[in-house]
Amino acid sequence: MENLKSGETLDDLQLKGIHVIQKTEGFRFGVDAVILANFANIKKAGSVVDLCTGTGIIPFILAGKTSAKKIVGVEIQEEFVDMANRSVEYNKLQDKISFTHGDLKNKSLLKKLGRFDVVTVNPPYKLKNSGIINENDKNAIARHEILCTLEDVISASRDLLKDNGRFFMVHRPDRMVDILTLMRKYKIEPKRIRMVHPSEGKAANIVLVEGQRDGGKFLKWDRPLNIHTTDGGYTEDIIEMYKER
Amino acid sequence: MENLKSGETLDDLQLKGIHVIQKTEGFRFGVDAVILANFANIKKAGSVVDLCTGTGIIPFILAGKTSAKKIVGVEIQEEFVDMANRSVEYNKLQDKISFTHGDLKNKSLLKKLGRFDVVTVNPPYKLKNSGIINENDKNAIARHEILCTLEDVISASRDLLKDNGRFFMVHRPDRMVDILTLMRKYKIEPKRIRMVHPSEGKAANIVLVEGQRDGGKFLKWDRPLNIHTTDGGYTEDIIEMYKER
Repeated sequence: MENLKSGETLDDLQLKGIHVIQKTEGFRFGVDAVILANFANIKKAGSVVDLCTGTGIIPFILAGKTSAKKIVGVEIQEEFVDMANRSVEYNKLQDKISFTHGDLKNKSLLKKLGRFDVVTVNPPYKLKNSGIINENDKNAIARHEILCTLEDVISASRDLLKDNGRFFMVHRPDRMVDILTLMRKYKIEPKRIRMVHPSEGKAANIVLVEGQRDGGKFLKWDRPLNIHTTDGGYTEDIIEMYKER
Repeated sequence: MENLKSGETLDDLQLKGIHVIQKTEGFRFGVDAVILANFANIKKAGSVVDLCTGTGIIPFILAGKTSAKKIVGVEIQEEFVDMANRSVEYNKLQDKISFTHGDLKNKSLLKKLGRFDVVTVNPPYKLKNSGIINENDKNAIARHEILCTLEDVISASRDLLKDNGRFFMVHRPDRMVDILTLMRKYKIEPKRIRMVHPSEGKAANIVLVEGQRDGGKFLKWDRPLNIHTTDGGYTEDIIEMYKER
């Protein structure tokens, strides 16, 4: 492919022929993106904004799996936005997906983006001071709360959601108290939680949370999601998610 | 037994010969009390206060399973306190267990009780207005937030805990947002959570939470606890809890 730069690969999502440009080394999408895209309920012709979108993996999976009409990805690292834009061209998804380079702490950017039926977000998980070496490192920025904190994400989500709009986030269970208290602070009421376990019987290491802007207090817990079977393969639940629909 | 009143039974805890007086019909202890007593870490010679103690089941299990020096149960319904006191006599545990009749919203009661290494609590789970018929009904009071709310319990726990003292509660997952936000509000930081499932693969229907008064922010998730096996028996984890130690 002529638009591919050195150090990049074009990866087949195994989903309606969609391909995504990623770095050969460095931050590549994983199971988090796949399970978040499957956790999110997107209504037909709905609009979605994906925060901390990176190379745009979640918008591309949602374009393949849902009948969302408009999907916007927002990313602070310009190099990733450039890659995501070239993936849009390659897949000819210009009528559905677009990417915006910007900082979600910027209120005028949020205003310009408008309001959406759904926010999805796979934010940096780790606290700023948990063992970072280089704060300019692109992978560190994608993983640690250097340029945006959990509170920045939730605050921006409130601004970007329509009334009663839905928020879907993948995060780490050790941040659950922060997640739930901040969601309530910004009036995105937690409505559904799914704990994700490496395999059956192991402690959860990922959490999926759904919230609703100005939603009423009612929290539902989904059955747990196990990633691997005891013999190391993927569980039926995960295999189902990787299937084309 | 001469102290047993009409409509009461003397139930064998299968634990060091301890027996507990319960109503033949009505509110009887269940798996919640057993799993909470096993979730609570009580240091040797530690002091424990059990709130919403009812007929005192948690103090009696803790007396059998731990080397706690002093265990105090607090209960607002006088009839239950009377039963619990007769159970103390029957078991000759007067040097270890005592019960206090009173309302945990009463600040002077809390002051009189003093401060403890550990709070345990199995509070009423249900919101006040979730289908109650008779607010004077003793079983309704034990199950619904009629005489005490979750906030009352957590506020009282803060007053009753020594510095860095530990709080252990069993509750329902649908109240998780309230639980974690109130614990943080009253500076009892959530430190450990265990989700409890009716059986493997089912959504959790009980949650165990450990907090620490003025503790630092670090939350650990235990591996899930399943109550029943798929064939309807108890799991090894539960059988282990019912064993004498």
